[in-house]
Amino acid sequence: MAQLVLVPSTLELSAIGKQCFKPQTQCCMVNSTTLNLRTSKFPLKRVTFQRQKPLRSSFTVCATTLPIGQDAPPQPTNGFDQSSSRDSSKRKRVMVIGGDGYCGWATALHLSKKNYEVAIVDNLIRRTFDLQLGLDSLTPIASIHDRVSRWKSLTGKTIELYIGDICDFEFFSAAFKSFEPDTVVHFGEQRSAPYSMMDRPRALFTQSNNVIGTLNVLFAIKEFSEDCHLVKLGTMGEYGTPNIDIEEGYITITHNGRTDTLPYPKQANSFYHLSKVHDSNNIHFSCKTWGIRATDLNQGVVYGVRTDETDMHEELCNRLDYDGVFGTALNRFCVQAAVGHPLTVYGKGGQTRGYLDIRDTVQCMELAIANPAKPGEFRVFNQFTEQFSVRDLAALVSKAGEKLGIDVKTITVPNPRIEKEEHYYNAKRTKLIELGLQPHYLSDSLIDSLLNFAVAYKDRIDMKQIMPSVSWKKFGAAQVRSVAA
Amino acid sequence: MAQLVLVPSTLELSAIGKQCFKPQTQCCMVNSTTLNLRTSKFPLKRVTFQRQKPLRSSFTVCATTLPIGQDAPPQPTNGFDQSSSRDSSKRKRVMVIGGDGYCGWATALHLSKKNYEVAIVDNLIRRTFDLQLGLDSLTPIASIHDRVSRWKSLTGKTIELYIGDICDFEFFSAAFKSFEPDTVVHFGEQRSAPYSMMDRPRALFTQSNNVIGTLNVLFAIKEFSEDCHLVKLGTMGEYGTPNIDIEEGYITITHNGRTDTLPYPKQANSFYHLSKVHDSNNIHFSCKTWGIRATDLNQGVVYGVRTDETDMHEELCNRLDYDGVFGTALNRFCVQAAVGHPLTVYGKGGQTRGYLDIRDTVQCMELAIANPAKPGEFRVFNQFTEQFSVRDLAALVSKAGEKLGIDVKTITVPNPRIEKEEHYYNAKRTKLIELGLQPHYLSDSLIDSLLNFAVAYKDRIDMKQIMPSVSWKKFGAAQVRSVAA
Repeated sequence: MAQLVLVPSTLELSAIGKQCFKPQTQCCMVNSTTLNLRTSKFPLKRVTFQRQKPLRSSFTVCATTLPIGQDAPPQPTNGFDQSSSRDSSKRKRVMVIGGDGYCGWATALHLSKKNYEVAIVDNLIRRTFDLQLGLDSLTPIASIHDRVSRWKSLTGKTIELYIGDICDFEFFSAAFKSFEPDTVVHFGEQRSAPYSMMDRPRALFTQSNNVIGTLNVLFAIKEFSEDCHLVKLGTMGEYGTPNIDIEEGYITITHNGRTDTLPYPKQANSFYHLSKVHDSNNIHFSCKTWGIRATDLNQGVVYGVRTDETDMHEELCNRLDYDGVFGTALNRFCVQAAVGHPLTVYGKGGQTRGYLDIRDTVQCMELAIANPAKPGEFRVFNQFTEQFSVRDLAALVSKAGEKLGIDVKTITVPNPRIEKEEHYYNAKRTKLIELGLQPHYLSDSLIDSLLNFAVAYKDRIDMKQIMPSVSWKKFGAAQVRSVAA
Repeated sequence: MAQLVLVPSTLELSAIGKQCFKPQTQCCMVNSTTLNLRTSKFPLKRVTFQRQKPLRSSFTVCATTLPIGQDAPPQPTNGFDQSSSRDSSKRKRVMVIGGDGYCGWATALHLSKKNYEVAIVDNLIRRTFDLQLGLDSLTPIASIHDRVSRWKSLTGKTIELYIGDICDFEFFSAAFKSFEPDTVVHFGEQRSAPYSMMDRPRALFTQSNNVIGTLNVLFAIKEFSEDCHLVKLGTMGEYGTPNIDIEEGYITITHNGRTDTLPYPKQANSFYHLSKVHDSNNIHFSCKTWGIRATDLNQGVVYGVRTDETDMHEELCNRLDYDGVFGTALNRFCVQAAVGHPLTVYGKGGQTRGYLDIRDTVQCMELAIANPAKPGEFRVFNQFTEQFSVRDLAALVSKAGEKLGIDVKTITVPNPRIEKEEHYYNAKRTKLIELGLQPHYLSDSLIDSLLNFAVAYKDRIDMKQIMPSVSWKKFGAAQVRSVAA
């Protein structure tokens, strides 16, 4: 089993040229188990260890990010709800796993603003993927340490930070027991279909990372806090493109004169999407067997970058991916348009999916947390607001381009995926609306705004990143080279 | 990545006091990858290495088991089909992963008898599980090396042996390229639901071992031999106990006026059964995307121990598990009856499942291999011959006991599983019958025979092993202790 190594020495976290942080808790761990599935590597910027003996394999830093000299919360600089450390026990505690990522960061800030006590758990591997593949966010993003520090200085609100890998149960159980969440929001997965289709190691990594990480979350809840509500990010891609209406998680089937309500059949179309199906099945079973409460949010494709909270300061800015591995359709089209590159529609472009604005992602998270599933319930919501085909999106961006005086062309490129390019698609999306979701529909002005945003960052656009790069049929080194090229 | 370490030194396999083996091929490997998921440990009996530098982590032996002094095949000792090494290229080559296990061993012998060129791939971890948990087969079983050696001496037929872990792709790809199978039969998974429900490490092991192993098989087929037919062992337990008829893999659903044929909804009820669902989904996707051909055999609960081939010599005898972790219902009841222990029915005993005789398992494997799926086809057969409730089986064993003068009592024990104890169950099983399966139905004489078999081995029965031992609700060290106690 993994061993907990106590490190009595001083852990110094120094933010070069900016604020300094004083850790409140710390732990370091060494894996020596044969059942521990992998040794994670992640960047730890500006961390210096003074240690008694060498650390091997992996290590994790658990530290709150209370700036030195700010032990007493500073006066707020805006109109947020205020809470002292004394009444914090009354506030709902939400652990956001993957809180440094695209959806996770926006969600963590939104929940903190809404007066939840928030902790981020992240191994920062999403940033490592960029380093490894030669990719970068269109927007410059601050380190997670600077992000939460800036949030603290702007709002007086602390977001606790646990840097480590949830696949390492020694780390995760320590974080879980330290923070004692009422809700765990789980974004902490490898979330790109193309990444999972690049080569065998990345396919295996995606499935083992996502499945094992989620199992560890389930086991932590079972072992330490059975009442904790798991809010898990699934994907609309779990359903595939059936020729019948897509329901929310379950379907009532009458067959040979008998009727039952069963899990909706899944037809995932990448090793990533499959990992989410595996997760759903594992979570469903755990709810039935252990009485755990869980909400599976089958999210559509997210677009946009700005939320009220990330807009507050450039150091809070969210990432915007436009590359062929992590970029999503509408974001990519806006960036392509901004540099005068034709919009690259895969094949016929009739591929239809559910979409939503990132401002609705954070709203949905808040609704799911505020209205938890019952003990033993595995609740499934389809989290999107509108359906579009790829063709539809290209047409909308072309129209927005015209208004800005940009001549936007659309080209068809060979579809790197194996998928239906024309198909029926009608997915239900009533449960979050019933809970109070007020959607930001994809108006012309929204696209104008996103396109303007891309234009504003035009100088940072890397032309290598805007083409599709990963084929569903090819695997191996050549494919990985082409992504980096 | 894992590194292939060439070992130019001599590998000596000496069978103490018995035959000696001369390896035809050999390779040893050292893992140093961060993506390689685990370091497997397995027993290698009577293997001596002379090596140039120390080997770390894991090592694998790939060796055919041609007895020394028998380079020329011996004359057959029975009426089996004969083939020389010259015409072996015309024979269909079947790689049996997990060929040292209960179903795998019986299948490997049956296929060898039927003139297939057979290789066994196995890491022998099933034997390790017994060592770790203090369990043992009712029947004494020879080492895999002695087993294939005995088979060779009796029949003149060579079964090639690759000892290693399919989760280690360096090993598995070497084995695959060496043997060049036309068909891969994949039994090589952790196959016990109670084992997967024992504790967190075993739950994680079950899912990662099964899912990653199967992914490696799929990747090997895609990379090295796209025409190779995968015959994968699934389980009827993937379906759970829906209140509608269970079809074979797919169901046609009419919903809101539209119709589609979709994967049958799955409701697996242990981390083991879930791992098989994950496998099915991964294989289905790989067939669609890469054009791989696969047959998923959703097997029921297997009973019995003797097949024509294992009956030929005591060193070919198959294992018979009767413990609470690996033993299946009918086998366990016969062993309980043999020692005068009451039959332990879990709860109400209305739990109904599909069952089959191990002689039908080997027949089904042969039929699936001889009639392969088409390229791109993911074919699902339900592999069982009859349905019984646990109560039904207890009554049948009681009746058989009476004939032998054994007073068989049946008791109800608290159900350690979370499952429906009374439910509708009607599963289809037509596809293997259409291919020509001639079932061995569970006649009174069959149960008499199995009970007699258990009585014959009465002196080897360990009373600690006949009680249920693993609860679906409890996890951790206490539970593992109770299994060993």
